[in-house]
Amino acid sequence: MNTEMPGEFIVRPIGTVHSPISDPAAAPRQGDEGAPDTWISFAPELAAAVRDLRPGDDVLVFTWLHLADREVLAVHPRDDLSRPLTGVFATRSSHRPNPIGLHRVRILGAEDHGIKVRDLEAVDGTPVLDIKPVLEIRNER
Amino acid sequence: MNTEMPGEFIVRPIGTVHSPISDPAAAPRQGDEGAPDTWISFAPELAAAVRDLRPGDDVLVFTWLHLADREVLAVHPRDDLSRPLTGVFATRSSHRPNPIGLHRVRILGAEDHGIKVRDLEAVDGTPVLDIKPVLEIRNER
Repeated sequence: MNTEMPGEFIVRPIGTVHSPISDPAAAPRQGDEGAPDTWISFAPELAAAVRDLRPGDDVLVFTWLHLADREVLAVHPRDDLSRPLTGVFATRSSHRPNPIGLHRVRILGAEDHGIKVRDLEAVDGTPVLDIKPVLEIRNER
Repeated sequence: MNTEMPGEFIVRPIGTVHSPISDPAAAPRQGDEGAPDTWISFAPELAAAVRDLRPGDDVLVFTWLHLADREVLAVHPRDDLSRPLTGVFATRSSHRPNPIGLHRVRILGAEDHGIKVRDLEAVDGTPVLDIKPVLEIRNER
């Protein structure tokens, strides 16, 4: 089995989260009330990629968790010290080698260069890398 | 609303897909039989991050779709020309500005530097960026 690693790749944000949440400690779980409504603004040159996002759509938002520590390989899940140290790929920790966040959200509104979404738990200024419709996540291609 | 884009980020593959599928045209949909079993090898220095992945676990594998065209902003979904040209963020096309693939797979076997998975539809050599447990994809943090 070949363990050679291919090279590095550059991701360029397609947009930015605009949220009233600026403190990472406040971002996780908001109880049953969910996170506050949030805007995602898009780079103007991507209008053709954005235009079919519609209110009511459920989408997966891929973010770059820019505050994460990429050197962390194991964590206590949910910062609960009573839980054993666990390899990050078996956890949802934001701390991981490539801190890509995955968020399922409902689109509430769509305008020319942005969408309003419900339940996006990410701090203000978080870069957005991609958006995909939910559908099934099998048969990706 | 501030539409300023933050800078670029570098992703470094954590592993590589080893698959009998080498032709992208053969990778999508294998009918009801699913894709062939596939190995993901990991960089040895990430052993501590990998070690809690276990057979039977359902995980989300994030890949870098290295054959994708990042300049494409709209596509005919599933290459069906009878379907209207659609902005890529409303499709699952691999062609998109940041070609991150999302695959839900079952872990069949786990060894020191690799895991065997079922139903990973990606060509041989596809870089792997991240692995997360399935759980709920709400409450990401």
